[in-house]
Amino acid sequence: MTDLQPTDRTQVRRHRDRAAYEVDQIDAILAEGFICHAACHDAGTTWMVPTAYGLSGSAGDGGELLLHGAAANHLFKAAAGGAQLVATVTHVDAMVLARSTFSHSINYRSVVVFGQARHITDPAEKAAALGTIVEHMLPGRSTEARPPNDAELLQTVVVALALTEASAKLRTGPPGDGDSPDADLPVWAGTIALRTAADLPVAAPGLSAGGIDAGPSASWAVQPGRW
Amino acid sequence: MTDLQPTDRTQVRRHRDRAAYEVDQIDAILAEGFICHAACHDAGTTWMVPTAYGLSGSAGDGGELLLHGAAANHLFKAAAGGAQLVATVTHVDAMVLARSTFSHSINYRSVVVFGQARHITDPAEKAAALGTIVEHMLPGRSTEARPPNDAELLQTVVVALALTEASAKLRTGPPGDGDSPDADLPVWAGTIALRTAADLPVAAPGLSAGGIDAGPSASWAVQPGRW
Repeated sequence: MTDLQPTDRTQVRRHRDRAAYEVDQIDAILAEGFICHAACHDAGTTWMVPTAYGLSGSAGDGGELLLHGAAANHLFKAAAGGAQLVATVTHVDAMVLARSTFSHSINYRSVVVFGQARHITDPAEKAAALGTIVEHMLPGRSTEARPPNDAELLQTVVVALALTEASAKLRTGPPGDGDSPDADLPVWAGTIALRTAADLPVAAPGLSAGGIDAGPSASWAVQPGRW
Repeated sequence: MTDLQPTDRTQVRRHRDRAAYEVDQIDAILAEGFICHAACHDAGTTWMVPTAYGLSGSAGDGGELLLHGAAANHLFKAAAGGAQLVATVTHVDAMVLARSTFSHSINYRSVVVFGQARHITDPAEKAAALGTIVEHMLPGRSTEARPPNDAELLQTVVVALALTEASAKLRTGPPGDGDSPDADLPVWAGTIALRTAADLPVAAPGLSAGGIDAGPSASWAVQPGRW
């Protein structure tokens, strides 16, 4: 199993038992989601946005997290200008209900990535990156939709954050107070698992005959297995 | 309807039609979630963690976002020391599949809060805040679980972030290209709604007789209506 080398920023200090630097684990967490939270510090303020992302490859093999946003957005303007970014992908898997308030927890899997992003300016690479982001949201979709044109590319900033300085953190399992004196308390303890569920596709109003004939996104068929 | 006053930090610059400063809207988004992403900049690095939160009241009435973490955690140490924080709560409501790659989007509701947090050091207030965080995760739960003791309080940092410099941003509805020339393309377009679903509670192994008798958390009964 390949590990990423922890740095001062990705070294997990609390609950080291929950830390993971294995490429496979990092890749799996990033593969499952499509929304991250990205932050950077610019002009005295720390900015954060929730935003869609794509993946150009594995954390173990030069892969990058692809992000896009409006050219007018603080965070994307700063990122394009070379600001350090941090991006986090989080899956919330369960509420962990312990006998004590203190031992309540969350089962989760998260990946955090640090680094200076690469500003993608080449139009062909930029268009491909936007396709990758759409493809990551719904596999197959990027071959169905019209690709971006020049005017659209100009309105969008695309940056790529290398998956080299990254780590995962996760918690699984029941509450941790089963072996403590609290175990005898007359308090129910356990977990409530949470899942993301997708409803059936709903067609846009006024869909053209051609759009109706195309059917609910062909790529939809691969989606239910995701979650 | 009461509005918060936008500041340089909370003024939404892109897609102003998606911005909301109404207290009711901000409160509703914060009420629905229980995980936020918090970030701050300290010692040259922007740190981010996903973390549970609680609410002490309404954004329109002096309410605060309550956060807790390990005293050894970078972000919580910095927050306790007076660093500026940003916290974001995001609900992802749907994938928005447009005819063009560029018009693909996400239906979401998010709240961002900026500010210097108040470090809660009084033991009674700290214990109450931890109870509020657990209560926000699962209503009723804070009266079932054992409250924190002095040793537990010492291991935990609790900070309160005023909900005064806050704004919401949201997108709803079908893809935006229904009135554009793209509407004639033979591409399916529409939305796929996403929901958080909770499974039935699973008891911890070795639950005491008293814990079993207490039943799956009494507060569980109120949970399904949440999502």
